[in-house]
Amino acid sequence: MPKKVYLTRRETFAAAHRLFKPELSDEENFNLFGKCSNPNWHGHNYTLEVTVIGDVDPETGFVLDIKKLKNLIHEYVISKVDHKNLNIDTEFMSGLIPTSENITIAIWNQLEDKIRGGKLFSIKLYETENNYFEYKGD
Amino acid sequence: MPKKVYLTRRETFAAAHRLFKPELSDEENFNLFGKCSNPNWHGHNYTLEVTVIGDVDPETGFVLDIKKLKNLIHEYVISKVDHKNLNIDTEFMSGLIPTSENITIAIWNQLEDKIRGGKLFSIKLYETENNYFEYKGD
Amino acid sequence: MPKKVYLTRRETFAAAHRLFKPELSDEENFNLFGKCSNPNWHGHNYTLEVTVIGDVDPETGFVLDIKKLKNLIHEYVISKVDHKNLNIDTEFMSGLIPTSENITIAIWNQLEDKIRGGKLFSIKLYETENNYFEYKGD
Amino acid sequence: MPKKVYLTRRETFAAAHRLFKPELSDEENFNLFGKCSNPNWHGHNYTLEVTVIGDVDPETGFVLDIKKLKNLIHEYVISKVDHKNLNIDTEFMSGLIPTSENITIAIWNQLEDKIRGGKLFSIKLYETENNYFEYKGD
Amino acid sequence: MPKKVYLTRRETFAAAHRLFKPELSDEENFNLFGKCSNPNWHGHNYTLEVTVIGDVDPETGFVLDIKKLKNLIHEYVISKVDHKNLNIDTEFMSGLIPTSENITIAIWNQLEDKIRGGKLFSIKLYETENNYFEYKGD
Amino acid sequence: MPKKVYLTRRETFAAAHRLFKPELSDEENFNLFGKCSNPNWHGHNYTLEVTVIGDVDPETGFVLDIKKLKNLIHEYVISKVDHKNLNIDTEFMSGLIPTSENITIAIWNQLEDKIRGGKLFSIKLYETENNYFEYKGD
Repeated sequence: MPKKVYLTRRETFAAAHRLFKPELSDEENFNLFGKCSNPNWHGHNYTLEVTVIGDVDPETGFVLDIKKLKNLIHEYVISKVDHKNLNIDTEFMSGLIPTSENITIAIWNQLEDKIRGGKLFSIKLYETENNYFEYKGD
Repeated sequence: MPKKVYLTRRETFAAAHRLFKPELSDEENFNLFGKCSNPNWHGHNYTLEVTVIGDVDPETGFVLDIKKLKNLIHEYVISKVDHKNLNIDTEFMSGLIPTSENITIAIWNQLEDKIRGGKLFSIKLYETENNYFEYKGD
Repeated sequence: MPKKVYLTRRETFAAAHRLFKPELSDEENFNLFGKCSNPNWHGHNYTLEVTVIGDVDPETGFVLDIKKLKNLIHEYVISKVDHKNLNIDTEFMSGLIPTSENITIAIWNQLEDKIRGGKLFSIKLYETENNYFEYKGD
Repeated sequence: MPKKVYLTRRETFAAAHRLFKPELSDEENFNLFGKCSNPNWHGHNYTLEVTVIGDVDPETGFVLDIKKLKNLIHEYVISKVDHKNLNIDTEFMSGLIPTSENITIAIWNQLEDKIRGGKLFSIKLYETENNYFEYKGD
Repeated sequence: MPKKVYLTRRETFAAAHRLFKPELSDEENFNLFGKCSNPNWHGHNYTLEVTVIGDVDPETGFVLDIKKLKNLIHEYVISKVDHKNLNIDTEFMSGLIPTSENITIAIWNQLEDKIRGGKLFSIKLYETENNYFEYKGD
Repeated sequence: MPKKVYLTRRETFAAAHRLFKPELSDEENFNLFGKCSNPNWHGHNYTLEVTVIGDVDPETGFVLDIKKLKNLIHEYVISKVDHKNLNIDTEFMSGLIPTSENITIAIWNQLEDKIRGGKLFSIKLYETENNYFEYKGD
């Protein structure tokens, strides 16, 4: 019986964002989102971990070729978020408040049906070294 | 249907401790606990990770405001353990042998019913860069 | 009722390997395994995390003595892989293509029945800071 | 004779910026600054290390109280850059292109004459885990 | 002409300490040393980096055998500070207030004349991930 | 007067090597180089830090474009060492015993006259998380 292994690829990207609801004033946004609502934006070096689960192919010893996973993540995520403004530039987040919770879910949705040879298991996003977020599709 | 996201806050604290049972001699304690039983104490920079699971609020994109979680952890844990002696100074560990296993469970008990807007999922404690411990409430 | 705690020990080792199938040519191996098939070998500093789950003994506050876990890992794994060639020198991997997937499973098999006072829960292997692999026995 | 010790305090902050010269077009800015000139901003979690050199006071064993250094850095730097836009919000960088080189020098100028009990020796700024910059006052 | 290379060995140790002057009251000590003067001790996982400079031997390509440097550090430093109380247990610090500044200098004095095949260049001590100290013999 | 800033680029590579002198027996090599002389090779994930010093250009705020430095390092170093055997595959190290000392100096020699817009200041090589080496051209 094939063995199931979890395989994780780590990537990083730098982006600007702002937490706010357009229908609220700056002051109301500050009450809701704190300094993350600064009207002139701020930003992060995000660290992203994509975990896939799959059967080890007895012929190759691979679940899937991690270079292909890396390429997928670059094509569908990194190229659309790195050195971008997540509120303005990133189509697959359009209409979302770019909290780390929402970014994590949006990246899951972006990648879920692109993975071949395994199944997406988890998206983990480090906003800073002290705050991180994980979504497993539920 | 709301999405469930795991949110983790990392904090650090420095504390002294000693592993020993008062009814045993120093030699018997050394046989049981090794150099961790040194009668004159030793200490660690502990790293603590508190993970909460909850629904993402579609209005704010938050599970909960991570600043509030940080404040809770400071009020109920960090202020009682940082630059303290865990055997003597920390009331919520009184009567416990302060192994990392017991510290992890004590921190869980200390925080479990204080979390609002989500549910405590895991307490992870790094004693050193090579040894860590996790408790999930079971 | 005793509490269940997960306890993790981190170790590192440096090893050489090559991904290839002996029945294929160098070119065919390159097509399958990329630069990991370099005939003159390459190598890594692997980081290994061994996680055990067990009941906290109310007498000692330990699941098990982490020094004993460290010694087990050194005796059965590190002494056989550190500064070795995983294709040639490591008996417990003989006949395997030493992908990280296969190394992770082989280390699980090597350790599973040696753990006392707890149950092996997970083997995690970092091949680089960007790629890691985990096996939980399924 | 008193001994000279170098003492370093690490802090982090998150900020947005854009590299551009207002007199150039977006295309000319892209040719000069690459993706760092994205008109909608991007951002980073910067890590800042402030190093002070001074004599160890034989009475206290301190060069200076590191809590005071931390407070100085927060008052004069972190409060003015964290969750800010370095092009717009930070007065002490006004008129500068906020490259890491220029940020490093601006922080030096901001702190140099505020240090008591030691002399500023170096400002080190990590823009990402792969790129860092240091200025020593020359 | 032989080339000069700097070689650094990193080690860690866990210890308890207290900052205080015996001739002062607890309150006076608190005013001088803050929470580091807690009468019941606290502790740290210290990280120590020992840097040696020397000529590369053209016969071996080594400045010196780093295993010998590791053994020296263990014999003269780690064995005397790990899982110890730096105020009470460590003879080579006796009479010192164990601030990181003083620990760094004491370790320099302990190692300086033991190094063979190179010259001690620097002792660096991380008290926490945010505070570190360096001494170069001046 | 232009300000001088030190700029550092970090890269990683994975390689195999063996420390030995061909004129010695395996046993003599083991006495000289220990387990690093394993005839079947072993390997490392090396981390390389290249530091350049230069004047900040007041027009751009750059010492030099760090992307160009990255490209230089890839062209002249990483492409020749990553997933290679340093004893066999890397021409610019041919005839050298690939100790970390010698690798560090060889990378310096490889890069020194390629840097534009600044001067090579230091090559730092991490062989493991506990051992690192630095060469500054002397």
